[in-house]
Amino acid sequence: MTDSINDLLPEGLQDRLPPLAGQAAHIARAMLDNMDSHGYDRVHPPLIEFEQSLAGRMDGVQPRQMFRFVDPRSLRMLALRSDMTVQIGRIAATGLADAPRPLRLCYAGPVARMTGDQLDPSRENMQLGAELIGSDTVAAAAEMVCLAIDALKAAGATGISVDFTLPDLVDTLAREALPLAPEQVDAVRRELDAKDAGGLRDAGGEAYVPLLYATGPFDEAIEKLAAIDAGGTLATRITALRQIAAQAAGKARLTLDPSERHGFEYQSWFGFTLYADGVRGVMGRGGTYHIKGKEEPATGFSLYPEQLADAQGLSADIRPKLFLPIGHDRDVAAALRAEGWRTLAALDAGDDAAKLGCTHRLDGTVPAPL
Amino acid sequence: MTDSINDLLPEGLQDRLPPLAGQAAHIARAMLDNMDSHGYDRVHPPLIEFEQSLAGRMDGVQPRQMFRFVDPRSLRMLALRSDMTVQIGRIAATGLADAPRPLRLCYAGPVARMTGDQLDPSRENMQLGAELIGSDTVAAAAEMVCLAIDALKAAGATGISVDFTLPDLVDTLAREALPLAPEQVDAVRRELDAKDAGGLRDAGGEAYVPLLYATGPFDEAIEKLAAIDAGGTLATRITALRQIAAQAAGKARLTLDPSERHGFEYQSWFGFTLYADGVRGVMGRGGTYHIKGKEEPATGFSLYPEQLADAQGLSADIRPKLFLPIGHDRDVAAALRAEGWRTLAALDAGDDAAKLGCTHRLDGTVPAPL
Repeated sequence: MTDSINDLLPEGLQDRLPPLAGQAAHIARAMLDNMDSHGYDRVHPPLIEFEQSLAGRMDGVQPRQMFRFVDPRSLRMLALRSDMTVQIGRIAATGLADAPRPLRLCYAGPVARMTGDQLDPSRENMQLGAELIGSDTVAAAAEMVCLAIDALKAAGATGISVDFTLPDLVDTLAREALPLAPEQVDAVRRELDAKDAGGLRDAGGEAYVPLLYATGPFDEAIEKLAAIDAGGTLATRITALRQIAAQAAGKARLTLDPSERHGFEYQSWFGFTLYADGVRGVMGRGGTYHIKGKEEPATGFSLYPEQLADAQGLSADIRPKLFLPIGHDRDVAAALRAEGWRTLAALDAGDDAAKLGCTHRLDGTVPAPL
Repeated sequence: MTDSINDLLPEGLQDRLPPLAGQAAHIARAMLDNMDSHGYDRVHPPLIEFEQSLAGRMDGVQPRQMFRFVDPRSLRMLALRSDMTVQIGRIAATGLADAPRPLRLCYAGPVARMTGDQLDPSRENMQLGAELIGSDTVAAAAEMVCLAIDALKAAGATGISVDFTLPDLVDTLAREALPLAPEQVDAVRRELDAKDAGGLRDAGGEAYVPLLYATGPFDEAIEKLAAIDAGGTLATRITALRQIAAQAAGKARLTLDPSERHGFEYQSWFGFTLYADGVRGVMGRGGTYHIKGKEEPATGFSLYPEQLADAQGLSADIRPKLFLPIGHDRDVAAALRAEGWRTLAALDAGDDAAKLGCTHRLDGTVPAPL
């Protein structure tokens, strides 16, 4: 094969090689073990479903972003999942419809999308998350924020910060406190997303401008948000945010950006974004949402363990490796593996222990440093 | 959503629910940890590649069985992988082309195919495996057979048996010892696959009939195969099989079925099939093969951890679970989790510990049985 085309991967798709691949797997395990210790049971949905089923479970899911193909069996359209949360929603509404609530589930697996974007050109990611189904209360939101922080710490993340948002803020305000004509709502949302005060005024959203400044460290920003809320429309939201923040206080740096909507396509009253030291971009996202079908409230979050592996870099895999020369005692080798040694057996008398990355060589029954 | 179509999964695709999903993940970890302890480094290729790249790396890979779709970026055909071994071959020939040989790699991930078959209707499976790249010698084959057995045992498999085969047996014999006209070779292969002595005679393969009886427990079957091999064409193969069997002896039940080809589309001189107690069908397969591009010999095997989870059944997940009532001491709960307790925190005063599957309830600082 001299056809080098066969050696290439499509844009946005990549191999993970040693030691980064092992490190990403190790991080994912630590996160899942942490979720398991908090009573979250593992579920494992398939890679592929009917397009209609993936698209219809929650609002805001974009089937146009999924790889799609016709099923030769059913002749219906299938899609490769771009998000596992919708699958967990389906499981909650079907196979686990009769399981007691609240239902605590966790999951991990690859997701793919047809095109990357400027912030993240990759078209495949490992998604890992937890969902608390049957509740979207303050208690549920606080449990999920604290669980996300705990899972990140268990995986070695440092400098964790959590940015709170109110995904349906504009809808809520536009209904009563800061009325907008229906045709203005989208423009106001757009200018808030762009954080453009001038644009906001031009769009008739003068009253929304102060929201742009109710951002930053949580304790100060929530005061600003409370000051804007003259009519008390947001009073229960503000109280809820304070209660969630009180539970997460001391575990991570907390900030508020109440009008942030990016990445919160299906979330309802509460959303949060996770960041960590060294991680380029977002480490994870979560919030409250609503599952169609069984019409259930839920709260959950997703993490991207490969981002953390990239942040931690190559320093992790310097574990000792023990070279087993030809004719070594296999029982001794097995006993050393049981003690935690990583071994590498010579296949051929010419195998070079150092070149193969070994740090030690078995000398009779004793590992000797190379 | 009253549309029940949205609640269904396509034929051959399924959810794994608790506790089976957790058990399959646990089995996969045990296998990967075992491979890691033998010096195999984790790699993680993407779900999707250019169809041509997946199809061109080894002989016998069937692109017709892959889900395929046009890439909106390159306008070339992409495919969802149906086998990860070809991807490991590509990695060995590209990203790890300069890594020292032999190269030891392991991997795990989902694979999908467009249609199931009668033996196994599922269209998605977890594939997990190890590849030893740069060698297809007896030593390499013996290392892989022993590693497969060890990984299965580490995951709790019992009653393991290994069936050896010689995938290119007919080609080898037809060239010299038991000559066949080129147009007869396919028919003889087919009748050997069908284990049909009459059909074999009709196809002009009279001389091949004794192969049908050189099967069964290894020590006896290899004697029968040696007796057939009048010209000594198979002498090196027979010696090799005896050497591999000598290394695996005592670790698993060994059998021989020298003309078995099913599932060995790209293997060269040596193949093996793994079985375990309670596992319906095949637990895994491996053998020697050849990677195109860098033209390298290799030896490897794949396991299907979900098969073992199904065999072990539901008995595994009866771990204690500790209910944490509202207002519990969070530091006490964290300390108990660090000790290995699995906790579940009340969200609401109405949460019922027993209904939620808890076996204990935190009473102050002490877990009390429910």
